Amino acid sequence: MTDAYRPPIDDILFLLRRVIDTERVLALPAYGHVDAAALEAAIRQAGRIAADVVAPTNAEADRVGARFDNGSVRLPPGMRRAYDAFRAGGWPSLALPEKFGGQAMPELAQAAVSEMINGASLAFSMLVVVGRAAARVLLAHGSHEIQATYVPRLTSGEWSGAIVMTEPHAGSDIARARTRATRNEDGSYDLTGTKIFISFGEHDATRQICHIVLARTDQGLAGAAGLSLFLVPKFLVSPDGALGRRNAVRASRIEDKMGICGSPTCEMRFEGATGHLLGAPGRGLQNMFTMINTMRLEVALEGVGVAGAALDRALAYAAERVQGGSRAARAQPIIAHADVRRMLLTMKAQTGGARGLAYEIAWLLDIARGAGDREAASLASFLLPIAKARCTDLAVEAASRAVQVHGGHGYISDHGVEQLLRDARITPIYEGTNGIQGIDLVLRRLGRDGGRSFDALARRIETDCESRPPDPELRDIGDAVVHGLARLRAASAHLLDRLGAGATDDALAGATPYLSLAGTVVMAWMWLRMARAAGADPHGEEIRALARYFALEIAPTVDALAASIRAGSAHLFALDAGQIARL
Amino acid sequence: MTDAYRPPIDDILFLLRRVIDTERVLALPAYGHVDAAALEAAIRQAGRIAADVVAPTNAEADRVGARFDNGSVRLPPGMRRAYDAFRAGGWPSLALPEKFGGQAMPELAQAAVSEMINGASLAFSMLVVVGRAAARVLLAHGSHEIQATYVPRLTSGEWSGAIVMTEPHAGSDIARARTRATRNEDGSYDLTGTKIFISFGEHDATRQICHIVLARTDQGLAGAAGLSLFLVPKFLVSPDGALGRRNAVRASRIEDKMGICGSPTCEMRFEGATGHLLGAPGRGLQNMFTMINTMRLEVALEGVGVAGAALDRALAYAAERVQGGSRAARAQPIIAHADVRRMLLTMKAQTGGARGLAYEIAWLLDIARGAGDREAASLASFLLPIAKARCTDLAVEAASRAVQVHGGHGYISDHGVEQLLRDARITPIYEGTNGIQGIDLVLRRLGRDGGRSFDALARRIETDCESRPPDPELRDIGDAVVHGLARLRAASAHLLDRLGAGATDDALAGATPYLSLAGTVVMAWMWLRMARAAGADPHGEEIRALARYFALEIAPTVDALAASIRAGSAHLFALDAGQIARL
Repeated sequence: MTDAYRPPIDDILFLLRRVIDTERVLALPAYGHVDAAALEAAIRQAGRIAADVVAPTNAEADRVGARFDNGSVRLPPGMRRAYDAFRAGGWPSLALPEKFGGQAMPELAQAAVSEMINGASLAFSMLVVVGRAAARVLLAHGSHEIQATYVPRLTSGEWSGAIVMTEPHAGSDIARARTRATRNEDGSYDLTGTKIFISFGEHDATRQICHIVLARTDQGLAGAAGLSLFLVPKFLVSPDGALGRRNAVRASRIEDKMGICGSPTCEMRFEGATGHLLGAPGRGLQNMFTMINTMRLEVALEGVGVAGAALDRALAYAAERVQGGSRAARAQPIIAHADVRRMLLTMKAQTGGARGLAYEIAWLLDIARGAGDREAASLASFLLPIAKARCTDLAVEAASRAVQVHGGHGYISDHGVEQLLRDARITPIYEGTNGIQGIDLVLRRLGRDGGRSFDALARRIETDCESRPPDPELRDIGDAVVHGLARLRAASAHLLDRLGAGATDDALAGATPYLSLAGTVVMAWMWLRMARAAGADPHGEEIRALARYFALEIAPTVDALAASIRAGSAHLFALDAGQIARL
Repeated sequence: MTDAYRPPIDDILFLLRRVIDTERVLALPAYGHVDAAALEAAIRQAGRIAADVVAPTNAEADRVGARFDNGSVRLPPGMRRAYDAFRAGGWPSLALPEKFGGQAMPELAQAAVSEMINGASLAFSMLVVVGRAAARVLLAHGSHEIQATYVPRLTSGEWSGAIVMTEPHAGSDIARARTRATRNEDGSYDLTGTKIFISFGEHDATRQICHIVLARTDQGLAGAAGLSLFLVPKFLVSPDGALGRRNAVRASRIEDKMGICGSPTCEMRFEGATGHLLGAPGRGLQNMFTMINTMRLEVALEGVGVAGAALDRALAYAAERVQGGSRAARAQPIIAHADVRRMLLTMKAQTGGARGLAYEIAWLLDIARGAGDREAASLASFLLPIAKARCTDLAVEAASRAVQVHGGHGYISDHGVEQLLRDARITPIYEGTNGIQGIDLVLRRLGRDGGRSFDALARRIETDCESRPPDPELRDIGDAVVHGLARLRAASAHLLDRLGAGATDDALAGATPYLSLAGTVVMAWMWLRMARAAGADPHGEEIRALARYFALEIAPTVDALAASIRAGSAHLFALDAGQIARL
């Protein structure tokens, strides 16, 4: 029962068939080898893998956890077996290039598969995510030789990857990294330093681990300018791909943490480890950022996956648990109670909106890549920090609501919902805290192009609203989009004005509410689109009701968010640090 | 470092000296033996116990946890030692009657002491809370003999208590309880049944445990009418107080749970256990409810305590952690960043408001009891479900924000903030879920007296606002109170109207947002009072700034809450259970 996971196949296929313009993606030359039937078959099959292979390992992964023993890390046995089955099914290769053995499916397909694997087990999915991320870095910045040797084995899942950035004093502020790389005569580098918080930096699911490491090549240059990117394999590799001697990179401990206990979070020591430069020296941080967009989408989908799993547990429990009304005649499942419905419908409306937002971004990335559409690329860039932050915050809220729906039974380990909350809690933190997402949104996505990306988004929403005669049945959600968009336009103009005036603190003070405001408006827009498309769907009545629920219960928060943005920064800086912290 | 706890003595004494009318309580005959100096000395001393004796046990309590072994439960050794020291200091007796060895301090003193013990360790404080609750039930419903035998030993802490209500099928809906009590010839009862979720139902900190048990005396009567209340001691007691034979009540398991791992949550089997009737047969549930008010305040103070501890950790970390701005000249503690300030100030404004609300209730209870003031009693009854729900929800939010301020370091166990989040998560669930608090507020506190208690509260706030000329410096918080109160009045009238029309679903649909709305307005009022009183305080500037922050950032949520209440229930009941759960 703890591990039961019902993949939301109907919801996903509804989005892909009726809301998102999947046909346009599949018509692109890059995806000429994929048709709708193949896409849907892959999604259905991934749903079975998620439910039957991955989900049954999740409670054990939490209970047993990854174990550290003198430099090696043992994964829970179920997780290891599930990874073997996952690999055998070819799932690591889904969206990687055909040239290296991949299936070259669109991001939309990867999004759907990722959501379900995430919903089944966040600890497990992290192993897959970091392997895919490493492959993508090598595809973008590796030499031909490195690509030829490493990418096929990452694509098959025979080898795994790790993204190695953080140091004890360099977290959000990664440019402070100190790990040193010195050049050898043969062009390779020796890396020395300590990295922390490295997911799957060491484990026993694959023999080889490909570390993508940020290190300082120029000791004279502080900050980002001295940083370069390296591939540091756990075992050195001969040109034919055979594993050679053990490289000088070792796990020195793993962290004891709140959740995703099956995913080892390693401290890694590099003691003169051999590394291969990726891209130009001094461009390490910029090159790392080429992967940031896809990682943000991955983490947004973690949020959607966990929120969906939490929702599913809460629904099942609420439909079955009888309380309230002690006389037999009135006894009924708790789903009959108004407040339980409020919790469930809030979860449904939030999860559905978050899924719409994340899949819309996957679609934009497919169009941007497959059709070279620059507006699609800039829209995706604008939406990515919003999706990363909103989907993960909502995942924590959804998991917490699922615990609440279960009452005391949710707080004990038996039903597995408290694990979902513990697991979900990392997602607003890693891959750039949600606070960092807000700063990125305001300074770079909004500010850097003077609001052009935002304007393109706003026009798209507006055009969409005006493209059809208002449907009286959808008036609430239609009005919510129009009202929210007006608030968002005013907030964007206000922030641009503050940036233009050099009042950066005022703009940054509004970053987090601006993120929430934009996320709420885009989710309302997705609900409008879902409600319009719901006509013939078997769940059509449900979808229209949820859109209305979103309009009545969630959309009204935009006014307080707008007020918070307008409030500026004076009230945040009225006290000095000593007064706030009472030092 | 994990266990460090700085008790918020300054904040507490500011409230008691300048905001709450403590003098009026101390002038009551019931508290003639207490003066302000004694009250403050007790609070300062409790702060030392919390920091030096209790807090150092908290991480161990979590890591080691309570252990079950064949019917007995072993507490973590540090917790047991801390309990011995706590007892030796006389702390269990603080607010219990002098007649039974207590110090008969007012609830205000108990509130301050409880907040700090809760902030130091929620697992530990639960042992103290259930002992105090058992004593209070016996004081209200026990015979003279029972009181004479049991209450002094509960007051001294030599014996402990347990509140034994929940059964697997009877949680929120406690009237479904099936545990049977059959009368013996000597007037005692034999109890048989299984109870779950019993905090400290079994442990090794005291030899004797006094179970207060709800059981069915009349099998023919379903629901509350057949339930009676019993005292079931772990060991039978001879008239001189000596412990006799072991009673047939045993722990059959303890739960593995998300947090408060040092507090054993027991499944208890009663197999013909000897019990003593408390109060009249058939009045068990009503008699249990006499303790509900104080338990709600206890749990509200758990929320305040944990929120304060989370805030303290976040402040310390933010003031010390340097990130952001990689060039040395710009490097500064993260407390300098707008978004970190937003998180910290939100925590401060919420925690301060929650503390004000909880202490105001303690004051009302003191006035109600000490002066027989019925309006004070009805105001306290109105505010208690609000405080229980809001303070616990805010504790979860504060703990989650403290994790976020710590970033990745908050998610690992080293800093102890993830424990605070796991511990806090039980508080919105137990002692009546927050959903149940909302139902109680709307149906009983608001509906049952036709809004009279609410009117008294609104008048009190209004009179307070009008009693002084508006202070331009406090305009924001003053306006927030006036605006919020107008919203709250309208919402109350709307709910009363729906109740009057028999549209109970409409009223219950608004219960949770009404709880939040009322809580926000009362907290704004407390901030107005704190800001007015802050003039001469060394932290005066900080207090005024926080009141303004509350007005600008938190109070504006009242509009969306009011909209949600007005939305009624149609959108919650548009779908049937099958459509929501997709069964």
